[in-house]
This record gives sequence, structure tokens and C-alpha cells, in this order.
Amino acid sequence: MKRRLIILGSTGSIGQNTLEVVREHPERFEIVGLAAGSNVDEMVRQVNTYRPPLVSMATKEAAEEVRLRSSFPVRVVYGEEGLLEAAQQPDADYVVSALVGSRGLPPTLAAIRAGKTIGLANKESLVMGGSIVMEEAKKAGVSILPIDSEHSALFQCLNGERDASVRRMILTASGGAFRDWPRERLKAATKEEALQHPNWSMGAKVTVDSASLMNKGLEVIEAHWLFGLPYDRIDVLVHPESIIHSMVEFEDGAVMAQLGTPDMKVPIQYALSHPERLSLSAERLDLAAIGKLHFREPDFERFPCLKIAFDCGRAGGTLPTVMNAANEVAVNRFLEGGVPFLAIEEIIREVLNRHTPTARPSLDELFEADRWAREAAQHSGAAV
Amino acid sequence: MKRRLIILGSTGSIGQNTLEVVREHPERFEIVGLAAGSNVDEMVRQVNTYRPPLVSMATKEAAEEVRLRSSFPVRVVYGEEGLLEAAQQPDADYVVSALVGSRGLPPTLAAIRAGKTIGLANKESLVMGGSIVMEEAKKAGVSILPIDSEHSALFQCLNGERDASVRRMILTASGGAFRDWPRERLKAATKEEALQHPNWSMGAKVTVDSASLMNKGLEVIEAHWLFGLPYDRIDVLVHPESIIHSMVEFEDGAVMAQLGTPDMKVPIQYALSHPERLSLSAERLDLAAIGKLHFREPDFERFPCLKIAFDCGRAGGTLPTVMNAANEVAVNRFLEGGVPFLAIEEIIREVLNRHTPTARPSLDELFEADRWAREAAQHSGAAV
Repeated sequence: MKRRLIILGSTGSIGQNTLEVVREHPERFEIVGLAAGSNVDEMVRQVNTYRPPLVSMATKEAAEEVRLRSSFPVRVVYGEEGLLEAAQQPDADYVVSALVGSRGLPPTLAAIRAGKTIGLANKESLVMGGSIVMEEAKKAGVSILPIDSEHSALFQCLNGERDASVRRMILTASGGAFRDWPRERLKAATKEEALQHPNWSMGAKVTVDSASLMNKGLEVIEAHWLFGLPYDRIDVLVHPESIIHSMVEFEDGAVMAQLGTPDMKVPIQYALSHPERLSLSAERLDLAAIGKLHFREPDFERFPCLKIAFDCGRAGGTLPTVMNAANEVAVNRFLEGGVPFLAIEEIIREVLNRHTPTARPSLDELFEADRWAREAAQHSGAAV
Repeated sequence: MKRRLIILGSTGSIGQNTLEVVREHPERFEIVGLAAGSNVDEMVRQVNTYRPPLVSMATKEAAEEVRLRSSFPVRVVYGEEGLLEAAQQPDADYVVSALVGSRGLPPTLAAIRAGKTIGLANKESLVMGGSIVMEEAKKAGVSILPIDSEHSALFQCLNGERDASVRRMILTASGGAFRDWPRERLKAATKEEALQHPNWSMGAKVTVDSASLMNKGLEVIEAHWLFGLPYDRIDVLVHPESIIHSMVEFEDGAVMAQLGTPDMKVPIQYALSHPERLSLSAERLDLAAIGKLHFREPDFERFPCLKIAFDCGRAGGTLPTVMNAANEVAVNRFLEGGVPFLAIEEIIREVLNRHTPTARPSLDELFEADRWAREAAQHSGAAV
């Protein structure tokens, strides 16, 4: 039986790779809905190729343009309401949640409540609403399958193992664009430099997060929620080649690792085909040609965002939400050229300092904290 | 319920490590029989510590000495008959087959026929009698769990996976004592030099086999039988640090690997506790401290034994048996100082050239080929 997919964020990097996987296995997957922001050109191409019955765009204008330019009659909805409709679309049994940022949380929750299996690439859903998302998923009997390469690696390492045997998880980190930069040089880092990821081709927000190591911090929090492991049993290891995508150490000392060339299609397809694997015409790993793999401890001094993320994760409550929202706004301000690279961590720190945390926030309180933190980060004058 | 173990080869390196695992988990494992060759002192220590009801030694004299020196009344048998009795001991449900060489095959087959689960360290059982052993195991509904670190790694990588998804297996090889020696220098390699294994502390025979890469060749044949994979889907990769113990590549391009510090107790315990893992106070893997892992293709020119093993494995029939027997004798002659290191490959080649292969040998024909090859190898004047 075919899996009937909705892709939330279909015009982004994960979305496009997901569609490539679907194209390789038309006998297994079918697209029943696509949702995106404002990239009309790409959405029109996707609609004409995959012919989904439902499409959602961020604005009424974008929606109208997609409808007019589609080669066949397609229902196009828009806005937050449209996104929620797409997430719950009754034809679908599987929702790929690949929006970037905290706006991915409401449709992900809606899809969970509608009983859809979730392929999760939107890490902010878990960073912001981890306890609520996991609780709702449990209640709805829904599986959340990781799409991030690191979490997919951890998930694959857990195959056939008992949770109780896990001693710790080791998330590998390429170290990002500034891995070997001294702290002093980071002050003058430009947007163009931050966007030079050594191994992976990804969206701008994630690439800047990789350069600050905040991306790894978000992944640590995501791993905590996905696998139910306390933070002192989640480690980060810098591994510049990004060949080992992550590892699990078991109580007998054995360490299982998942390796591969950096190709997003592998974790995406695994999330779609699980528990099976399907063939994939990806570049094969040739360790002899690579020759060497390197490893070192992460540097929390040069990259304080990683430490901030561990601290906020441990503290819980509204803190990860506020950290994530402040980071999103700060990265955006950096990408727009308004603030220097090191202002990102300063803004996050300032916003966190000004925040009054709530211990067990409701969803409304999380969104209120998110809104407040965005506002505060937008106007923060830290280090500017 | 406790697993009731017999250890065949209890005074060797695998046997002693197995007993250490048993000592760490007395609530899980119980020793109901021990078999060894002529190491009376060690056997007496083991008998007095683990108090097995049955012991087998190679000779009547050794058996008598063990009986006299034991601190409690123990039944001691001897010879091939004694070994077979131990292998089928009705109290046992699990037999650790850790004898060195082809003499491990008859008791392993006897244990399989008696319905015991097998923890297999004696690779020659599969090299010599792979088709018969696997067929008998299938018939008896018996599991064969690998104890060799490489095969244990492969077995762990297959956890929760479907056999049909496997694209290839990659056996890692430290490269042995002569990894970086030019071919010319190998001519004068001494016994002491051959016994300097870079990472693992093992018996003399296996250590010399590591230096010639014949050990990896035997492991390739073992993997072929254990996992039912054709030889063109089994690769060898030189990895000097022996941290990645082996890998499986799946059809989606994902590669699963098992890593750890080189400690035999990990694969031994895994074979005993499977499908569970138990805690083990082994040294933990610290990749940041190790810093780098290296990989390169094996050199079939400098180490022709690896190529011979692939060729004999592919040809099948009596050839792996003859190769293995000739290797055992040649290594023994080298260890006794009778022939130089490079005579090992010459003797194997000469014996193989003189052999008339049988395509589907019976067990008797295998033993006859084994006997013939030993005789031939003992008197071979190749390269001496």
C-alpha cells in the first residue's frame, strides 16, 4: 500500500529532497498535499509534476498565483488556517513536517492529533513544545520519525535494541563554517562566510545555526525529547567530515554508528520507508578514498550557543522556547546584515536574562513566550 | 533463567575471557562443563573456581592430573571422545566453541546436533565445514552466534534489519604486525615480530594469521557462511586502529558500524546475552581522545593470503579445508622456527596446487582432505 504524504515546507531543501525520494519510488509514495511559504515558481513546478489535490501557501496572493499557473485544477488554501487544513488533510496518512522555525509547531501538533505518522525535520517543534508534542503523540498512538541526519542515525542505531541498554547518545557535529576560527576572528564574520557549510547544503537559517553550533544545541534538545534521554547522557562530538552521522553507546560498551556520504535523501527516505529500507541511488561511502576521520571535543568557549542550549534544555519550561525564538530573530537580523555574527549569542543571552520562566507552560503560554522573545530579540540592542 | 554453558577451549584467550564475563554475571550464566588441551594448571584453577560437573582434557594424563588436583570431586574425561561428550553434555544449553583450528569442527557439529545454541569463536568450523555446519544448524533449529569481534559487529549491525536490505559487508582489518612492512622486509620477519599484534592480545596462531592477513581471509569465509552473503558482497578494509569492528552497507546507502575499544569481552558477552545487552565494565570508547581513524584498501600483493582465501572461498568444495589445514601446519612450522614467514603462503600455494578438489564433499571427505593437506604441508619443501 502506498504511503500518502503531505509535505509541509515542500519548496525548501528538505521538501525538495523528499520529493526526489518520492519520485524514485512512485510505487510506494503518493503526494496528497504540499504546503509552502511564498516560493510560487517552485510550487507551480511541484504541483504540475506531482498533482496533489491540495496546496497551501503563506498568503492569499501566492495561493491565487499558484492556482492560476497550475496546469490542472487544484484546491489552493493559504495562511495559518490553510496550513492547518493541509496538516490534517484526511487523504494523508503521513505528514513530513519540514517548515523552518517555530511556526512548524502548530501544524505538526494538528497532524499528530489527526493521527498522521510524522516525519519530523522541523526541530523547533520539539525544542519549543517537546513535552506537549511527545505527550500528544503518545495519546494519539502516532510515531514520530526523525528526518534530521543525526537523529535518523540515532534512530537507526537503536534498531532492534532495548531502550534500557542505552548508556549515552553521541551527536556528531561538523563544527560548521567557523569550526577552526579563533574567537577573535568571529567578530568580523560575514553572512557569506557563515553560509559556507563544510559538508551539507541546507537552508540559510540552519547553516548559520551550524556556524554558531546552535543547530547542534537544538538537536541535543530534539534528541532529548525524541529518545527520552536525560541531558547528561547526550554528548556532542566534533567530527569535521560528517561521515559518522551520530552514535549510540550501550551499557556493554559497544557503540553503534550510522555512516554515509552527506546526502539528506538517506535519512528522509529512511523516515518514509521505515521499518523497511529501499534502494537509493546515492553516492556510496568509500572510506578508503576518504582515508581519515577526525574527532575532537566541542569548544564551549568559542561556541557558547551550544552551552546555552544544554542549559536551557536542562532548565526546561519556557526557556528552550525563548532561546529558540530569540535565536531565530537574531539569525534573521544577522542574515539581513543588521547585526554582526557574535550579536546572535548576545541577543539570545539578553533575551533569556530578561525572561521570567514558567515551569510547566501550556501551549498558549509557550506561544506567548515565543511572541514575547521575538519582540524582545527584534529590539535587543545587545552587542550591536 | 540462567544460561548453562560449556566452554570448549576454556584455557585459551577466548575461553578465559568468557569465564570473566560469566564471573561478572553469576545471575545469568553457569558453567556446566569445561574442555581444554593440556594446560593443567589453568584448568585446575578454573575447576576450583567455577566447579563444573564435567571437564575434558586432551590426554588421559592431563585428565588424571586435573582430577587429582581439583579441590572437589569432578568427572574428567579426555581425548576426542571426551571432547564430544563435553560438547553434548545434557545439562548445557549453550556451547562456546573456542578451540583453535580444525579440531573444533567435530565437537561444534556434535553440539549443534544436540540442540545447543552455539557461541562460535572457532572460525575453522565454518571455513572447513561451512555448508554442513549451517545446514545442520538449520535442521536442528539452532542459533550460531558469532564471537569474533568482526562478525559480532556485523551481527550487531544487522539488528532489526532485513537480510534483503544488505548491499555488502565490510570487514575491517588492523593489518596485523606487518601492516607497514614492504614485501622485501617480510622475508626476514621473525616469530617475535609476527607476534606483535598492534591492537589485540590473542593466541599465537591467530596473531600470525593476522600478520599474513590469512586471519581476515578466514573471517571473510566465516562471514560468507554466517550471513549467507556471496563473496563479491564481502569487502575488507584496512583500519589500523581496530575501533570500527566491521560495517554493513544497506541498499539505501546507509552504513551501520559497530565500534569500541578492542576488548574481546564485548563480543563474547554479546554472544552470550543476545538479544539482550548486559552491563560490562570495559574501557569506554573515547573518540575525541583517539582523534583520528584511518582507512585504506588492503594490499593483495603484499599479503597474497587474503587473495588465496577469497579464491578458495569462491571455489568452495574441499579448497577452503585444504587451505586452512595447510595454513595451520605452515604457521606451526613458522612458530617452531622451521620455516621463514613467507614460506607460509608458499606452502599453502603448493599444497593447493597439488590438491584434487571435490565439489560437494561429505564430512568424511572434508576430514580426509584436511588430513591429506596437513601431511602435505608438513612435508612441503616450498620456499624453505
